[in-house]
Amino acid sequence: MTENDFLDNTTIIKYSHSNYEKTDFASVSEIDFLENKTTIKWLNTYGIKFHQAYKQVIIQNKLDDFLIKLLSDEDHPNKVILLDDLLFVTTRVLITTSNKLDSEQMVFIVSPTFLWSIQEKPGDYFNWIRERLEGNKGIVRKKKADYLLFLLLESIIDNYQDTYEENAELSADKLNSTHIKPTPEFTSLVEKRKQELFNFKKATMSLKDTIVKLEKMEIDGFDVKYFSELKEQTNNLISNIDFELQELESKINLIFSIQGHRLNEVMKTLTILSVVFIPLTFLAGIYGMNFENIPELKYEYSYFILLGVMVLITIISIWYFKRKKWF
Amino acid sequence: MTENDFLDNTTIIKYSHSNYEKTDFASVSEIDFLENKTTIKWLNTYGIKFHQAYKQVIIQNKLDDFLIKLLSDEDHPNKVILLDDLLFVTTRVLITTSNKLDSEQMVFIVSPTFLWSIQEKPGDYFNWIRERLEGNKGIVRKKKADYLLFLLLESIIDNYQDTYEENAELSADKLNSTHIKPTPEFTSLVEKRKQELFNFKKATMSLKDTIVKLEKMEIDGFDVKYFSELKEQTNNLISNIDFELQELESKINLIFSIQGHRLNEVMKTLTILSVVFIPLTFLAGIYGMNFENIPELKYEYSYFILLGVMVLITIISIWYFKRKKWF
Amino acid sequence: MTENDFLDNTTIIKYSHSNYEKTDFASVSEIDFLENKTTIKWLNTYGIKFHQAYKQVIIQNKLDDFLIKLLSDEDHPNKVILLDDLLFVTTRVLITTSNKLDSEQMVFIVSPTFLWSIQEKPGDYFNWIRERLEGNKGIVRKKKADYLLFLLLESIIDNYQDTYEENAELSADKLNSTHIKPTPEFTSLVEKRKQELFNFKKATMSLKDTIVKLEKMEIDGFDVKYFSELKEQTNNLISNIDFELQELESKINLIFSIQGHRLNEVMKTLTILSVVFIPLTFLAGIYGMNFENIPELKYEYSYFILLGVMVLITIISIWYFKRKKWF
Amino acid sequence: MTENDFLDNTTIIKYSHSNYEKTDFASVSEIDFLENKTTIKWLNTYGIKFHQAYKQVIIQNKLDDFLIKLLSDEDHPNKVILLDDLLFVTTRVLITTSNKLDSEQMVFIVSPTFLWSIQEKPGDYFNWIRERLEGNKGIVRKKKADYLLFLLLESIIDNYQDTYEENAELSADKLNSTHIKPTPEFTSLVEKRKQELFNFKKATMSLKDTIVKLEKMEIDGFDVKYFSELKEQTNNLISNIDFELQELESKINLIFSIQGHRLNEVMKTLTILSVVFIPLTFLAGIYGMNFENIPELKYEYSYFILLGVMVLITIISIWYFKRKKWF
Amino acid sequence: MTENDFLDNTTIIKYSHSNYEKTDFASVSEIDFLENKTTIKWLNTYGIKFHQAYKQVIIQNKLDDFLIKLLSDEDHPNKVILLDDLLFVTTRVLITTSNKLDSEQMVFIVSPTFLWSIQEKPGDYFNWIRERLEGNKGIVRKKKADYLLFLLLESIIDNYQDTYEENAELSADKLNSTHIKPTPEFTSLVEKRKQELFNFKKATMSLKDTIVKLEKMEIDGFDVKYFSELKEQTNNLISNIDFELQELESKINLIFSIQGHRLNEVMKTLTILSVVFIPLTFLAGIYGMNFENIPELKYEYSYFILLGVMVLITIISIWYFKRKKWF
Repeated sequence: MTENDFLDNTTIIKYSHSNYEKTDFASVSEIDFLENKTTIKWLNTYGIKFHQAYKQVIIQNKLDDFLIKLLSDEDHPNKVILLDDLLFVTTRVLITTSNKLDSEQMVFIVSPTFLWSIQEKPGDYFNWIRERLEGNKGIVRKKKADYLLFLLLESIIDNYQDTYEENAELSADKLNSTHIKPTPEFTSLVEKRKQELFNFKKATMSLKDTIVKLEKMEIDGFDVKYFSELKEQTNNLISNIDFELQELESKINLIFSIQGHRLNEVMKTLTILSVVFIPLTFLAGIYGMNFENIPELKYEYSYFILLGVMVLITIISIWYFKRKKWF
Repeated sequence: MTENDFLDNTTIIKYSHSNYEKTDFASVSEIDFLENKTTIKWLNTYGIKFHQAYKQVIIQNKLDDFLIKLLSDEDHPNKVILLDDLLFVTTRVLITTSNKLDSEQMVFIVSPTFLWSIQEKPGDYFNWIRERLEGNKGIVRKKKADYLLFLLLESIIDNYQDTYEENAELSADKLNSTHIKPTPEFTSLVEKRKQELFNFKKATMSLKDTIVKLEKMEIDGFDVKYFSELKEQTNNLISNIDFELQELESKINLIFSIQGHRLNEVMKTLTILSVVFIPLTFLAGIYGMNFENIPELKYEYSYFILLGVMVLITIISIWYFKRKKWF
Repeated sequence: MTENDFLDNTTIIKYSHSNYEKTDFASVSEIDFLENKTTIKWLNTYGIKFHQAYKQVIIQNKLDDFLIKLLSDEDHPNKVILLDDLLFVTTRVLITTSNKLDSEQMVFIVSPTFLWSIQEKPGDYFNWIRERLEGNKGIVRKKKADYLLFLLLESIIDNYQDTYEENAELSADKLNSTHIKPTPEFTSLVEKRKQELFNFKKATMSLKDTIVKLEKMEIDGFDVKYFSELKEQTNNLISNIDFELQELESKINLIFSIQGHRLNEVMKTLTILSVVFIPLTFLAGIYGMNFENIPELKYEYSYFILLGVMVLITIISIWYFKRKKWF
Repeated sequence: MTENDFLDNTTIIKYSHSNYEKTDFASVSEIDFLENKTTIKWLNTYGIKFHQAYKQVIIQNKLDDFLIKLLSDEDHPNKVILLDDLLFVTTRVLITTSNKLDSEQMVFIVSPTFLWSIQEKPGDYFNWIRERLEGNKGIVRKKKADYLLFLLLESIIDNYQDTYEENAELSADKLNSTHIKPTPEFTSLVEKRKQELFNFKKATMSLKDTIVKLEKMEIDGFDVKYFSELKEQTNNLISNIDFELQELESKINLIFSIQGHRLNEVMKTLTILSVVFIPLTFLAGIYGMNFENIPELKYEYSYFILLGVMVLITIISIWYFKRKKWF
Repeated sequence: MTENDFLDNTTIIKYSHSNYEKTDFASVSEIDFLENKTTIKWLNTYGIKFHQAYKQVIIQNKLDDFLIKLLSDEDHPNKVILLDDLLFVTTRVLITTSNKLDSEQMVFIVSPTFLWSIQEKPGDYFNWIRERLEGNKGIVRKKKADYLLFLLLESIIDNYQDTYEENAELSADKLNSTHIKPTPEFTSLVEKRKQELFNFKKATMSLKDTIVKLEKMEIDGFDVKYFSELKEQTNNLISNIDFELQELESKINLIFSIQGHRLNEVMKTLTILSVVFIPLTFLAGIYGMNFENIPELKYEYSYFILLGVMVLITIISIWYFKRKKWF
């Protein structure tokens, strides 16, 4: 983790309404947020372990030294902390790479005139913003660093939204209500999806928490309306997730109801058949006994009478079940 | 999406206590919210994709340029954002067209002296308000744009209320508690209704959120009391939905209870019959054996004694079940 | 709905520390809240449809004209809206008439010096307050209109409390835990009571909401302490309802537990009997076969040996179930 | 309820850093909170029905006359109401007398310089505080009436804590998880304990509500820190109750799981046995038929071949169940 | 509990940007927080029962005398109370000693210039902080006592995090979803883990409460950002615990689903077999009867015809079950 590694992974973009400039650095000591307050500076670093370089940047730009402690803590999923003159935001971002859910730590250190973004891995996540900046598209070059932070966070939310929609479609196919099966395998699929959603909701909720905190903090030169817009976007995503969770709960209810119903059906079949045949079999058993003196055995029509009795018993049983509405 | 399409779909109504005027535009540049602050202006556009025209209107009327970004985002269900000098409200509205639930995106941009409503589809949704304005009915012409917004939102809530009541009646027929059946089909109907309600509640909740935010925002020239009134109306609707949800939960409980009860009934029938006949059949089996030396076979009254024993066993079994309160 | 109907159903009581006067009106134009601010005026109207008369009263007393809109909306269960110089409160009140739950809409329009109550139906609901006023009992004549509103709302809460207690006693008899039966009929009774309670809780909650809003609103000349007292009363009622709801949940749990237990008992009986007799019956079947060469059939003591074996099998089965703690 | 009864049940303690004096009264008119503001006065009355005397005390000490109304309402479980210059607190306190849960109504009327406690029944509940006051133990004599209220409320919470712990131990013995039985009787015990806890939690919650309100009210001369301390104590108690409730929920889950498991075990036993013997019995039945021409009956080794086949069928059945992991 | 015991268990560390000094005391009267406000003083005591010494320290340093009462209450799990010029924090800390969960009471009394920590048991819990102080590592020597409190609380949270992760791994092994078994033993394991987690969550929640209160209290010379950082850390831990709780709930659902499914499987097996064999056995019984006149018995091919009929019945039954999708 030498200074050179840090410099290789760091670029700065300086822009104002009329200018745009992208540069690298020859040494850490060149990084200067303080000069020329009318230009917005966006410093971007790939890699979260350049502690020595971070410390140097913080000290030479006279940023709050608590940042050194905050950046040295490598396991910090989601935080937004208001320091004296700037904002420290860190968030764990879900990223879809080749159809698998991965996550990446991102850190944003923002003041009204500069934004320092630290991404865990190199990537083209924010390239569209760089293009807007360079091409002076939209209103970004007319605005301060708060609008830049807004665009960065909006890409994260958009990515969440897209990821969620892809996964939701995938699971909707598998868990389609037309083939609900009351098996542990199906239940297991539903529960697995529920946990995926909880995970997703957890990530979105903590992102929303971050944004709500940003909305509430009153920092000079920061415009609340951008964060209001972001909050509404996360709210929409969360309410979609909640709705799918509710659907899955319904499916669990249905599974248990189907199980209970099937058991009832099975037991009714068994019971009806048993109730019909058990007495008949008993009667047959009676006349299969070998007692020497069973008078009925000798009457010529006994057999046919017995068959008649059996038919009668069957009819009565069936009539009984019909009346009890068993089938 | 030419400028002409936009002009074809846009009208403006200008009114004050004493005047009412409805006009079209020959060109976008004629749209002017700034002149004559004593007249209230209501601009209505059908269609949400005239981004170029929107931009022009925003710039020539010196509205907050963040509106350009907000209007270009086409997937924005429910938001209320306070901009510097105006309010941006967007909401997805449930609409019943020929007995099917549909939805439409609506955008309201409001200041104390003008209201710009953008509807996704042409329709007669707000015609009754135009009639009140033209005919100077009620108090609308005496009030500012906040009262106009109040009337627009009230029509949306009224439509929700009506839609809910229609659907509730329909489902009450199907799910009437007098014919609760413990089948997966019935459970499925209940769960489907629950999801309809969740959907409905979601829409109403987000409308309420919008209104609560309107109530809290302190904008010069906006009167909080109108939004209090709207909030109370949505609260009533939500509490009705919650009550029906609770009723459906009760039905699910009843279904499971009926299933359990039926299973018990079925099993009791089977068990009583089995318990009575199994020993009898065994006894008949004993004396059906072909051993050469079974002394009982030779006694003259064996058969009748055995029949007596069988009757006795039956009586004892039945007495036992009676004592155990099985029937 | 003529002016005369309105006048027939309207009386005014004017009182101060030393005076009390009750009058009718010859014409709507006589109704005057503005004169003599030291007297408290309580206007009472039976009937909620005198829109024309309402409008006239509102205009001639220079009350907020939004009241016209609020009073014309006939379907407004529970609201409290702070208008410029007065308070609009409407609430749907549960009323017990001859042991049946009914409900009535009540509207209160209050300022520090007058109170206008509009009841849906004529009744003696508030007569005890009129008597206190006339007889100068308690402290009511020393206080302003806020205390009068307090007394009116207190009678509503007291009526709720009484109604709840009556019904609770009634249902406690029917749902007494000593005769919990695991039948769908009993479950249905429990669920019906739960819905009654939800209904009751809904009404009480919205009354509490009304009161909480009254407590929070800071109106000149209104004393918060009266509404604190009312809030505590509703809280007590709600906590009683919650407690009964919890009891009913326990009963549902018990019902399912009893169902499960009974099924287990039934199945154990069936299984023990089957396990004992099935092998015995099989053995009897073996020696009932007609093969010409079954050596055992010819030995003299075969039958008795077999009977011994059967007794042995029975003993072993029973010992096995005893060890498994089946009975 | 004469004045004398009231005087017999009322004592006053006056104390300051250096003095302590306990006196009775000869007449109600002697009760004077107003003189000598440097002495703290603690008036204690046993009995909540001396309405006439209460009224006289309130009037002659110029206390808020709303107190007359508040004290005349005899059914007021839990309230804290801030009056102009003093605090009205009433709470229903659980008391253990000879191992049974009882409850008592307590009222505290407090200003910075006096405290009037009204207890429903005579008792030695607060004697330890009187002793501290008389003996000048701790810091109570150095503090104002707010510290006295703190000690009074702390004794109530301590009593709750003790009562809870006693009962928890008792129920832990009965509901010990080592002898969970899936019977309705056990379920009923668990549900009864849950209701006891709900009751207890209700009481503690309303006490906490009282304290939270005390903490929030900003009264001159009252120190918030005492009520913070009390709030923490009730929080601890509530979190203990919640934990036990969660344990009981787990037990209910376990009971249902055991019931389901037992049913499965019973049914498996029955099914395995039936599956093995039913085909065998059928085969025996076949060769027990009396057709004149059944060729197998005449072959010499048929019987032994059949026995072999039966053994084979049994082995296959058992192998099948083994593979299906039924045992 | 002599003064000497107290002195043996007490050390003080005094530090500033440039100095570090660690000393013991010869007598309690030497303990002085008041002199030299530029040095930060950290007093540490092992043992929570030195009430006499505590009292002396409090009085001679003119600390709030309510501390005497707070420290004398030995059963005080979690509290944070703002006193006039300092903060009283007490928390029950989970500690892992040789793989068993234990807990220890910790008390912190903090002002901007001193911190007094009281630990129940001697231990090396905070040694790493002492080393940082002595070696002047990090930024701790540049900061005030609030940063020291931050480090102390951070070690507690880190310990929680580590303890949680160890236990989670352990239980993940035992409760792995690949060997979910629908037995009461497995359910019991899941429920036990749930209770462990509730316990853990309870501890973490109350720690978070403590920190949230610290964040909200506005004390001169205390920096809110440190407590924001701690709050984020506890939030992360709590959200991990919640996620595991949700997983366990899913497992309970799965267990019940598996139980229901197994019962269905068992019952289907039994029923199919019974339905096939019961009629066949009955037929065999019919022709096992000993009536003298059963014409079928004498026809030469009766036996083979009957066998054919039996095969037919079997085929029809199996076809019926296939159509009903039973297997």
